[in-house]
Formats: sequence, C-alpha cells, structure tokens
Amino acid sequence: MAQTKKALVLFAHGARAASWAAPFERLRDLTAARLPDCAVRLAFLELMEPRLPETVAALVAEGVDEVTIVPVFLGQGGHLLRDLPLLAEGLRTAHPGLRLSVAGAVGEDPGVLAAMTDYCVRSTG
Amino acid sequence: MAQTKKALVLFAHGARAASWAAPFERLRDLTAARLPDCAVRLAFLELMEPRLPETVAALVAEGVDEVTIVPVFLGQGGHLLRDLPLLAEGLRTAHPGLRLSVAGAVGEDPGVLAAMTDYCVRSTG
Repeated sequence: MAQTKKALVLFAHGARAASWAAPFERLRDLTAARLPDCAVRLAFLELMEPRLPETVAALVAEGVDEVTIVPVFLGQGGHLLRDLPLLAEGLRTAHPGLRLSVAGAVGEDPGVLAAMTDYCVRSTG
Repeated sequence: MAQTKKALVLFAHGARAASWAAPFERLRDLTAARLPDCAVRLAFLELMEPRLPETVAALVAEGVDEVTIVPVFLGQGGHLLRDLPLLAEGLRTAHPGLRLSVAGAVGEDPGVLAAMTDYCVRSTG
C-alpha cells in the first residue's frame, strides 16, 4: 500500500489590494519549510486566486489523499460558520476518496493570541 | 505638568456573527492585563460597535492625550491602506491636541507569523 500523501491548505479571505497577500505567502513559505513531506498551498475565499475548490482538485490530481484546511482568519464570522462548511461539503462530494479536515481559525489559537498580545503591548512604545 | 495619559485601541474589522468578536475581546483583555497604566479598548471598522471615532472621542473625554491604534488585521488590504488613514485623519482634525499613532497590522509581525506557522504545522496532525 502506498504511503498517505498529505496536504495543508491555508485558507484566507482575499482582497483587492495585491499587497494583502504578502503575510499569507510568508506564512505558506514558513510552514512549507517546516513540512518537507507535505504539500502546502494557499487558497482564497474571494477576490484572489487560486480558490479553494481548484486548489484541492489540483492536489487530488497530484495524488494527495489527505487534506487539512487551516482557516487563516482571526475570528469565526460568516465566512467560517457558513461559507467554509459549504465549500468543504462540496469538496467531499467532488472527491469522495479524500480525507478532508478543517482546523480552527488561527486567531483562536492560544499561541497566536499570546504573540498578538506581545505585539500590542510593544506597540505602546 | 500632568503625566501623559496613554491609550491603546485595538482596531478590528467587525462581522455580523457575534461569535466573531471573541478572540478580539480575549486579545483586549490579555493586553489590558499587561498594561495596567494604559486604557485598552477594542473598536471596529464596520458591522460591530463601538466604532473607532466614538472610542477615541470617549478616551479624549477621559483625559487621554496619546492614542496608539493597532490594526488587528492579518494583511494590509483596502481597509488599512485607505479606510484607516482616512479615519486617522478625521481623528487628528477632531482632536488636534491628541498624539495619535498607527502601528502595523498584527499579521505582519514576525512573532505573530511564527506563532501562526507553529499552529499550521501542528494542524497537520
């Protein structure tokens, strides 16, 4: 039996300004450098390409059978409560052999909150 | 001469879902606990209250003379490139005696990026 081929998809909102993508691209590159055996991709909900369905379809075409989606969002609003579950349902229907899981929003992680707190405290000068 | 009275305003996007505010409220509380001599407030761009102008006006009314705005945004899109500078300009006009500074987006901070990377790496299981 072949080894499981894993991928991680960082899922971000997207924006009209191209500059907006920079920290997400850095996050993807930093994460990919730590996960040499995992395909790490960045996909957007709207306004930027690539979108989530095409990204996952391309991974499946590459032979990936396990995908974890990490929402790179600070809070759980309508995009994570409604849009992402609908997208995930569509992905499960389109790729029945795929193991798909969705992590919590990065902004809800205690380590990320602690780092944001440090930054806020330092910002007061 | 009286001592400078400082405040820190965490500036977030806002959303229709009330659940969205939770990590921002935790961030405000964690930051406030570390800055006992600084007023720490949370204000929103849209969809949630309070908004930035009212928040800063209330701080000035309390005698605050130095405000730092920290954008709790992951990337620099139109909200930070256009909306926030316009809001800051309005605040400077409305409160000419106030020293107002705007920090970079939390998502651009190397410490925050490192914590998000750790979270992404852990999410692969």
